[in-house]
Amino acid sequence: MEQLTLHEDPRSGNCYKIRLTAALLDLPLARVGYDIMKGETRTPEFLRDVNGNGRIPVLQVGERFLPESNAACWYLAEDSPLIPAERFERADMLRWMFFEQYNHEPNIATLRFWLFFVGEANLGAFQRDQIPAKRAAGEAALALMEGHLAGRDWFVGANATLADVSLYAYTHVCEAGGFRLPDYPAVGAWLDRVAALPGYVAME
Amino acid sequence: MEQLTLHEDPRSGNCYKIRLTAALLDLPLARVGYDIMKGETRTPEFLRDVNGNGRIPVLQVGERFLPESNAACWYLAEDSPLIPAERFERADMLRWMFFEQYNHEPNIATLRFWLFFVGEANLGAFQRDQIPAKRAAGEAALALMEGHLAGRDWFVGANATLADVSLYAYTHVCEAGGFRLPDYPAVGAWLDRVAALPGYVAME
Repeated sequence: MEQLTLHEDPRSGNCYKIRLTAALLDLPLARVGYDIMKGETRTPEFLRDVNGNGRIPVLQVGERFLPESNAACWYLAEDSPLIPAERFERADMLRWMFFEQYNHEPNIATLRFWLFFVGEANLGAFQRDQIPAKRAAGEAALALMEGHLAGRDWFVGANATLADVSLYAYTHVCEAGGFRLPDYPAVGAWLDRVAALPGYVAME
Repeated sequence: MEQLTLHEDPRSGNCYKIRLTAALLDLPLARVGYDIMKGETRTPEFLRDVNGNGRIPVLQVGERFLPESNAACWYLAEDSPLIPAERFERADMLRWMFFEQYNHEPNIATLRFWLFFVGEANLGAFQRDQIPAKRAAGEAALALMEGHLAGRDWFVGANATLADVSLYAYTHVCEAGGFRLPDYPAVGAWLDRVAALPGYVAME
């Protein structure tokens, strides 16, 4: 495989997904850090050379750049046990990864960012007004995960897949956004299973 | 392939993506309709039997149910020319599909739904307050697409892929949400290329 470089902010769960995927697969990964709080992913150089969307993570593969965390995880994990061999299960894994980006991350990761990194006192009225809706949508996402995991060890099939990696990233730090893991015991037990996977690395 | 049934509301671009993918691949697709404006995807029966997330589309494959539009398109298109054969391009296609669900759909599709189907006068204050931010984010998504398509026929590689199908669905009706296609000429030319693909079907 070509040289792999992760353009990241280590506080971002989206970046951590890629680092965790590489670690579970024992793939070497160089890392370049940016501080999103200082706007380092919005500079003209970053927009031109790394990602015109102004966001991290970006996985650099040789001279090519791949934004979007779940797409980068897919690139790393092709032909590995982290992607199911069966056609429906493979699509079902993507289903949970799209769920993660649509229903989970915009609520659970955003509240963590606002409440833990920015601080509630520093939020604008527009952000503050969105907290109740994001709270409700985040709780709904966790409740859907709880129901799905009751009686199941992993999101899809009999083994850990990228669906688990993707959903783990912001779920395991959701309490920084004001969610309570004791309310979701099946989710909590699943988090422990992910953390026990061979090669697991913690978020920094 | 097992019997394929699309659970849909025909006004939804997310549902249309799946119908368009099936049409481009000449796959037979049965259809079951729901009216999302009447809450028909939130009934106890729907939540139990079709999708606990209360959303359409859902692609039914035999007795199994696959929510999330882009995951359903992936299921249909595996081993077809709509998914690139090269590893980086395959991940790059997924990159645009995740972009679609994160940066494009929540802004462009939501404004179409609010302004065209619900009607601005019927919106609550919470929705109305979000219009400027969704307008700006939707324009940013279209501008990124415009820049990417300058000098390119398709989002990834030399042929149409699921990235084009996915982004086409809500882009080609974005004017119903108050966006102006003449502001994005490369996007407009690309829309015409998608509509000229063999097997293309229009949204209803």
